[in-house]
Parts: sequence; C-alpha cells; structure tokens
Amino acid sequence: MTTGSDAGEAVVVGVDYGTLSGRAVVVRVADGAELGSAVAPYAHGVMDRVLATTGAALPPDWALQVPSDYVDVLRDAVPRALAAAGVDPADVVGLGTDFTACTVLPVLADGTPLCEVPELAGRAHAYVKLWKHHAAQGQADRINALAEQRGETWLPRYGGRLSSEWLLTKGLQLLEEDPQTYDRAAKLVEAADWVVWQLTGVLVRNACTAGYKSVLQDGAYPSRDFLGALHPGFAGFVDDKVRGPVGALGDLAGHLTAQAAAWTGLREGTPVCVGNVDAHVTAPAARAVDPGQLLAIMGTSTCHVMSSDRLAEVPGMCGVVDGGIVPGLWGYEAGQSGVGDVFAWFVDHAVPGQVAEGARAAGLDVHEHLSALAARQQVGEHGLVALDWHSGNRSVLVDHELSGMVVGLTLQTRPEDVYRALVEATAFGTRTVVEAFEAAGVPVTEVVVAGGLLKNRFLMQVYADVLRRPLSVLPSEQGPALGSAIHAAVAAGRYPDVRAASAAMGRREEAVWVPDSDAADRYDALFAEYRLLHDHFGRGGNDVMHRLRAMRRDAAVLDTPVHETTVVGAA
Amino acid sequence: MTTGSDAGEAVVVGVDYGTLSGRAVVVRVADGAELGSAVAPYAHGVMDRVLATTGAALPPDWALQVPSDYVDVLRDAVPRALAAAGVDPADVVGLGTDFTACTVLPVLADGTPLCEVPELAGRAHAYVKLWKHHAAQGQADRINALAEQRGETWLPRYGGRLSSEWLLTKGLQLLEEDPQTYDRAAKLVEAADWVVWQLTGVLVRNACTAGYKSVLQDGAYPSRDFLGALHPGFAGFVDDKVRGPVGALGDLAGHLTAQAAAWTGLREGTPVCVGNVDAHVTAPAARAVDPGQLLAIMGTSTCHVMSSDRLAEVPGMCGVVDGGIVPGLWGYEAGQSGVGDVFAWFVDHAVPGQVAEGARAAGLDVHEHLSALAARQQVGEHGLVALDWHSGNRSVLVDHELSGMVVGLTLQTRPEDVYRALVEATAFGTRTVVEAFEAAGVPVTEVVVAGGLLKNRFLMQVYADVLRRPLSVLPSEQGPALGSAIHAAVAAGRYPDVRAASAAMGRREEAVWVPDSDAADRYDALFAEYRLLHDHFGRGGNDVMHRLRAMRRDAAVLDTPVHETTVVGAA
Repeated sequence: MTTGSDAGEAVVVGVDYGTLSGRAVVVRVADGAELGSAVAPYAHGVMDRVLATTGAALPPDWALQVPSDYVDVLRDAVPRALAAAGVDPADVVGLGTDFTACTVLPVLADGTPLCEVPELAGRAHAYVKLWKHHAAQGQADRINALAEQRGETWLPRYGGRLSSEWLLTKGLQLLEEDPQTYDRAAKLVEAADWVVWQLTGVLVRNACTAGYKSVLQDGAYPSRDFLGALHPGFAGFVDDKVRGPVGALGDLAGHLTAQAAAWTGLREGTPVCVGNVDAHVTAPAARAVDPGQLLAIMGTSTCHVMSSDRLAEVPGMCGVVDGGIVPGLWGYEAGQSGVGDVFAWFVDHAVPGQVAEGARAAGLDVHEHLSALAARQQVGEHGLVALDWHSGNRSVLVDHELSGMVVGLTLQTRPEDVYRALVEATAFGTRTVVEAFEAAGVPVTEVVVAGGLLKNRFLMQVYADVLRRPLSVLPSEQGPALGSAIHAAVAAGRYPDVRAASAAMGRREEAVWVPDSDAADRYDALFAEYRLLHDHFGRGGNDVMHRLRAMRRDAAVLDTPVHETTVVGAA
Repeated sequence: MTTGSDAGEAVVVGVDYGTLSGRAVVVRVADGAELGSAVAPYAHGVMDRVLATTGAALPPDWALQVPSDYVDVLRDAVPRALAAAGVDPADVVGLGTDFTACTVLPVLADGTPLCEVPELAGRAHAYVKLWKHHAAQGQADRINALAEQRGETWLPRYGGRLSSEWLLTKGLQLLEEDPQTYDRAAKLVEAADWVVWQLTGVLVRNACTAGYKSVLQDGAYPSRDFLGALHPGFAGFVDDKVRGPVGALGDLAGHLTAQAAAWTGLREGTPVCVGNVDAHVTAPAARAVDPGQLLAIMGTSTCHVMSSDRLAEVPGMCGVVDGGIVPGLWGYEAGQSGVGDVFAWFVDHAVPGQVAEGARAAGLDVHEHLSALAARQQVGEHGLVALDWHSGNRSVLVDHELSGMVVGLTLQTRPEDVYRALVEATAFGTRTVVEAFEAAGVPVTEVVVAGGLLKNRFLMQVYADVLRRPLSVLPSEQGPALGSAIHAAVAAGRYPDVRAASAAMGRREEAVWVPDSDAADRYDALFAEYRLLHDHFGRGGNDVMHRLRAMRRDAAVLDTPVHETTVVGAA
C-alpha cells in the first residue's frame, strides 16, 4: 500500500460490507493505489442462536443482522479510512459500495427497517436475513418444483434450482411465517441497495442482485401468475415490494445527502455508484473481466464469478446474468456456501487446548499452526475424506439441507488431519464447480484467487494441486472494496467503463501457485472418493442429511415449544 | 467395599490386566466381598506411535506393549492390595488372573520375551502385540479367503471371519514381516498364559483364548495343510509354537513359585488358576452365567459374552467356544472394537479449551461435562449420526479396516453434539450385535452391563433407550478382577465349579435402567439411519474406508522410507 497522496489527487472510496464487518478503502483514481483503510465490526455480528433484542432462541439455520450496524460502518470506517489515507474529502470524487448477497431486509416506504419500528423490534422476521440464513429450504423446494412443472424459462438460468438464500424464498418464508410483518413491509430490499438508498435518498436496485438473486431475466421478474400459484397472498410480491428502477453496474445512483455526508465526512453531493455484490465487484479489482477468467473469492464462503461471451446452462450454477459482472458479457456465478467459516468453526469448536497452546508457543495463530502441521503430510496420509457442506451446498447441488461429514476417523486422527481434510474438501468443491462449467461448454481459461484465504500458503498449494492448474492471485487484502472504488470511479465519470477502470486500477499476479504433479496425481484418487460421497449423499443415494435436518427441526420443537411463536412470530 | 477382614478368613486374589494398567483385588471366598485393591499403570502404556526403546516411528494401526510391565503389576499392585485389605498372606488360598486378548508375545523356550533378548530389543515384532494391534488385516483377509475357499469347518464358529486381532493373523504377520524374529520365537503365547507361566513355572493355555483366539475347535487347531497353504514357512506354526496343554476355566494351573511369591508377597505354593480373558471372566462376577444372559463389559472397548445351550452360527460374531465362558455351555463372544477409547479420543483431540474450562468450573471432568450438556438434548436434536468404527468393527462386520465417520455436521455443531452422537453410535453398535444374536436363533433374555462406563448415567440411559430393554448392572468397579478371584476360589477347591462360586461370590442388580418409550421411538428412526450407513460403508456399497486405509499406508511409506526397515525389521 502506498501511504499518503499528493495534494489534489483524485481518489475514490470503496466500502465493502462483509459477513462480520464493513471495510472502507481510499483508492487513487489514477492507478488504484490503496491509500488508507479502516474496518468496523458489526456490533451485533451474525445472530444465529438468539435474537439480541429479546434473547429469544432462533430456530436452526437462521442468520440475522441489524441494519444500524451498516450505518455505523459509514460513520466509523469511512472517516477513519480517510484519516489513514491523509486525504482531503474535497479530493474524493466518488463512493462505491458492495455487499454480501442475497442479504435482504423489509422496510417501510421511506426505507426505515421494520426492526426499527418499535412494535416489530421483537420479531425475528423484521430483521435483515443474511445471505446464509438457510431456514427457507422448504420454500425453495416448492418454488423449484413449481417452476420446473410450469417450465418457467428463467429456471435454467439458475442451474435448474433457485437457492434457499434468495429473495423469492426469503420473501415467501416471511409471508408464510409472519404475515403481519410481511404486510407491514412496503419493500423487500437488498442490503446492497438499502445502503445506497441511505447514502443518496434514492432507491435504485443494482443489476447484479436483481439478476442473480431476484430472478430478473430478459427484463422480467417471475410472473404474478407464478407467484400466486405459490401462495395466493404472494401474487403481488414483485409488483408491490420489489419492482422499481434497476441500475447497471458502474452507473451513477445519486449523490451523497447532507445526512450521509455528516456520517462519512465526505462532501454532500459526492457521486455514489449503484450497489454491487462483494464477489462480482472483485472481478475488475483482479483484472478478471475477460471471458474465461474464473475469479474465486475465498473467505467465509467462496464465490466464483466469471464472464463469458457464451450463454450456457451450467447444471447447479448459481446463475447467469446479462451484464451481471461487467456490462456486455454474460456473468456466471457459482459458489461454495462454507469455506473459511468451516475452518473457523473447526478451530473454535474442535481444536483442543494443547494445540492452541502449541500455536501460541510457535508464535502462530491456530489456523497457521494447523496448516503448518498439515503441510508436513503426504496426500492421503491422514486417511480422511470430508464433505464441505457444513453450510449446505450452493453449487453444483444447490441444496442447503446438506451437511458436512468426515469419513476415515481413527483413534490416531489428530486435529491437523481433520483440518487438512476440510481444506481439501473445499478444494474438491471448487474442482467440482470448475468441471461443471467446462462440461457445459463454458471454458475456464484461468483461475484467479482473491480473498482472505490467499494468505494461507498451505491451502493455496492444496488448491493448485487439486485443481491441477496454476493459480493467479489478486494481491490485495481488500479486493471487494477496491472493486467498489473502481466502480465509483466509473460512476464519477473518470473512466468510460468498468473494463477501462479495471485495466488502470486493478491488479493481478499470474501463476503464483503451480501444481505439483505427484501430489496432483494422488489428489485425483482422493477426489474420486469425494465425488463418490458427493453424488451418494448429494444426489439421492442416501438422503440421510435431509432426514437429519428434519429430525433436528422436530426435536427443536419438542425442546422449546414456546419460543416458536415468540421468535418467528407466526400467528 | 467392606474394609478389613476377620482373622483367618479365607480370601483369594484376582489380578486383572487391562489395556493401560493392572489391578489386584482381594476378595473374601465366603461372599465375594471386595476387601482391598490396588492399581498399577503400565510404565510403557500402549506404544502406538513410536517404539519406546528406539524412538522409531511405528506404522499406522500398530499397538505394542512391554511384558515387564505385567510383572511390575504383580510386584506393585498385589502387595498394595493385600495391605489395603489388611489381609495376612497366609489367608490367601488362591490367585487368579485375567488379561486382554488376543494379546500375544513371542518368547524363548523358557518364557523369556524376545524383546528382552538384547539383540532383539530394537525390533518392533519382538514386543507384545496388544489386542488392538490392527496392522495384520491383510493377513486376516487372506486367512479368511482361504478358509472360505477350502470350506474349513471352524470358520462358521467365528461368524465366518477371523479378526485381524487374533493369533493366526498376528503370527503370520510376524513371519512375513520379520522372519528372523519369527524363527527365534520358540512359542507365541497369550499374555494371559504367559503371566500364569511366570507365576507357576508352568505353561498351560486357557480354554478361553485357545478357543476364541487360537481357533481350537472340537479339539483341533487349523491344520498343517491349511497353514502351509497360507505360507510355506507357516505350516508348522501350530505344532511348533502353539500346541500344548490346555486347561479348562477354573482349573488349577499350578502353584506359586518362590520367585513369584517374592514378587507378590504371597506364600510360595499358593494355588494359581489357569488364565482367563477380562470379558469372559466377568460373567461369573455378574452372575451372568445362565443361557441368554448377555453381559456387556463396557470400557475402552465393549465385549459381549453370553452362554447358551444352543450352538448356532451367528453372522459376524467373534466366536462360539465350548466351555468358553463356563464349562458345559457354549460361550458366545461378540464385541465393539472402540467405545470408551472413542470417547477418550474425542475428549483428548477434539474438545476445545473453553469446554474443558467449563468442565473445571462446574467441578466435573470433561466426560461428565459433555454428558451433562448432551443429556439436555432431545433425541435427534444434534442432527448427527456417527459410525463408531474408529478402531474398526469387531462384530458384526469383522473388519478392522473400517473407520469412524460423522454425518450431519453444520456450523452450529458443538462438541457435546458430536459426543452425544458418538455415545449413540456405540449404543447402535450394541443393538446391531443383539439383533444379530436373536436373528440367528440365540435368544437374549437379559442385558447386563459391567465396566467403567456404567458410571456415566447419561450413557446408560441412551443404551436402555436404544436397546429398548431394561439394563441390569454389575455393581462393582472391578468386575474382571472379581471374576478372576471367583475362578481362583474354584481352582483352590473352595467351590465345586464356577457356577456355584458365581452364585456365592458374584452380584447383579436387575433393571437399574429402563427405557423411555418416547425416546426409544425416536431412536428407532436414528438407528435406521445408522443401519443404512453401516450397511453401505460396511458391506461394500462404498469401500472408501478400505481405500483410505490403503492410501494412508502408501503415504506413510512415502513419508518415512527409512523407518520401515528399522521398525518392522523385515529383511
């Protein structure tokens, strides 16, 4: 990172909203240099066990957030990033943002989140449903079955299955489980667009989430007829609560309001770009905007985004959207629901004290320590194979009722063995996605990696070996924020389009990790085992994972008969 | 426990050799009252990673012990138990012992263990191979294939498969991997018989291990012809290294030598009973010697022993032996390779520091703490099902290349969830064994539990619910030692036979744990899932566990090309 900036140099600010925190980065328009940044954790984090306001237990698979935490990022991280960069707000020519998706909230007509309406603050359904809220699988199943039965033309654009994470399923769950709150919602809006609304006073939905998460294809949302067949009260969902202006990526959404200027320390009237999604916005940061450049953004979860000049139906992909990544190309999205958070879960809940002490003694964090121990092993030495479905499977199975497993445990199994097996399982998951693209006739010419997991050298080598491909990298720890800044520069008129801005401001190092061919050969054998288990448990050979989920839900009801009504608020 | 004894009252001493320690108990002949006891841990424990003498790494699945540790138990635990009981050695009328099995060692003609021969002390194959040494599966597979092909009549007596744990496989592995050490061995002897040899100067093999572990059926061992077909050098194995006098259970083996009297503090000439096996010897302690009384001895592993007046071929049982538990009845043995040691492995290697701290804060050990947390859950609430094959499967699949697995992991999974799933998996394993007996026409009329896991109230309730049966218990923490003492009383002529001694000295509390019918119904659903996975991974649906073991062995060779010759000593 270059520190400081010459007086009067044009800069842009990118704000990236992640799962646990928001990050602001100040970037020089001329060359993309990152001049300063600041991170603000969300005070309420992810609510997945209890609702913070009431202490009521949440059912399994819920994941909520509090929207005021997002505003706090603007008030905290943006001014600190400006200060860290030593930048005069007068030199900030634009602001861009990106968000996790599909992360949605119900709001009043003026944008007030329903959870901020006092009489609704105790209702779980009034809060933001985070992307990894996976409690609407039942709704997703019905949507998919109906769409397939009716031959809805949009369905193949989503690999044949909508995810339980997306707007329709979250909206339908809201209606069915808490109709009063549904009725109070003037709009259901992506957090990506809600933040831009807060910044500019203008609600403009972005083409990326509208396409990938709200099923806007060829200019149309799912029909009133289709929605009404799901539930009579759902017929008007799109017309009443979703439809509205949609902006292309890189478009100007509006200008900073006086209030937002006060929050951020920026000047009122600063141009603000339409919202974006953290994964997709990273592609221009990594200069991965050409057809066939698959960008894997690896963090809590992994998103794969790739532009192509070909329209194809890739089984189990998250979606293909015209201009979904950069205007003018088909943007493909795939993903893995759990990656870094699976490793974090393991470290938090399955690593004994003596290993943590070993890490401390070695001056490493637990991930580094386990990685160092695991790196000493030969491929297959741990005798394990895992399925990385602790958060379900987003691609290519598109089933959030799946769950994780580990096979091969013995009394000799040690934490670093399981850690390595989990890392490998996520690499096998990536390979499964890449192979699905290629099998569908969408060539993958280069794999580029971005995100927090880049720093784990052991993991990167595993991925190169498993994929049997060199890996390029985005050498920035704040790829999404950089991508948002690139979009801000376009919205501010500093570049003619996103590709031009990407060429000037983005960066990529090629073939940083190269596969070891012996290891790759041995991984082929292990991947074959993964594939067998993947297909057996993921494609109906044994639906035990679905049945275990159902038992878990049944048992939760037995356990706490009261909180169901308290929390979910169904009448 | 009654403390002190009236002067002159006849007592016997039982010595129980477990996996990690030996225990001596002083017992009153008249009523079985336990007057005093002492435990002596083995200084070398179980060597399963490195050979203590050389520090050389051991390959996967090895488990060795040092025989001098067994003598140390006689020198340490017996005198301390006598002191604790306040007993005059003159009142000790007999000594009985029991051991883990099949635990075998190669010895010189005079009984000297080969590992005590200086030039052999660095060779892994010169040591005791503990029952859970599982590195001879290849030999077991060949023995089973050949026996099946030749239609050997003894094979069905072992459920159709010999275990990799037993004498033939361990002997064949010794020959094939270290022929020089094999040649030096005048005998291969069960540790159970070796200890009696050290006590009396007499080598007499006991009917229990001879039948269950050395394949002595209807008076004959496997033929020279059969053995030679396995390996030309193996033809004389039985004749040269195994055959010899066999004593029935409860028989007098001999009298204490002067040296052994000096070790133990007992009088020279004290009657010593033939050896026994820790599981089988517990049946008379629990008064479980009638047909249909299934005794489950639950500790590190679980052994199921049951006498019956019917001879049947139970698929996958460990064995059926005439007089194998009490003379005059068919003795059945089944078992689970890993139970308590699976829980211990989990606590040692998969429970985070904060849970251990929570246990400390609650004044509990980690097992108690996890059990208390798990006990709060409804059946199925954790959403998990596990296979308890971390040490392979002894019954009914008889396959030590199998391994453990856990299905249903999510980011919400907590250590107590997995702990509960492991406890349940072992209960499902027991149910599988009970159902195999009944399906083969051998009725199970009562389930009696003994062993260290009795003290876990949560676990006992899970077992009652899963088995849908009341559970009786042996209210003694030293059941095997008590059983050995009962046998000693018989050998000393104080009772006419084991059944009479059992009636006078044993004890059993009936129906201490009774099933909850709601929980039992829900467990039926979870057991159905266990059964599906059990059959899929255990009966060839997916042999991934075998392939993972093979990969693990291959990788171990890659990893450490040198130690193979150092440790295993193959020429």
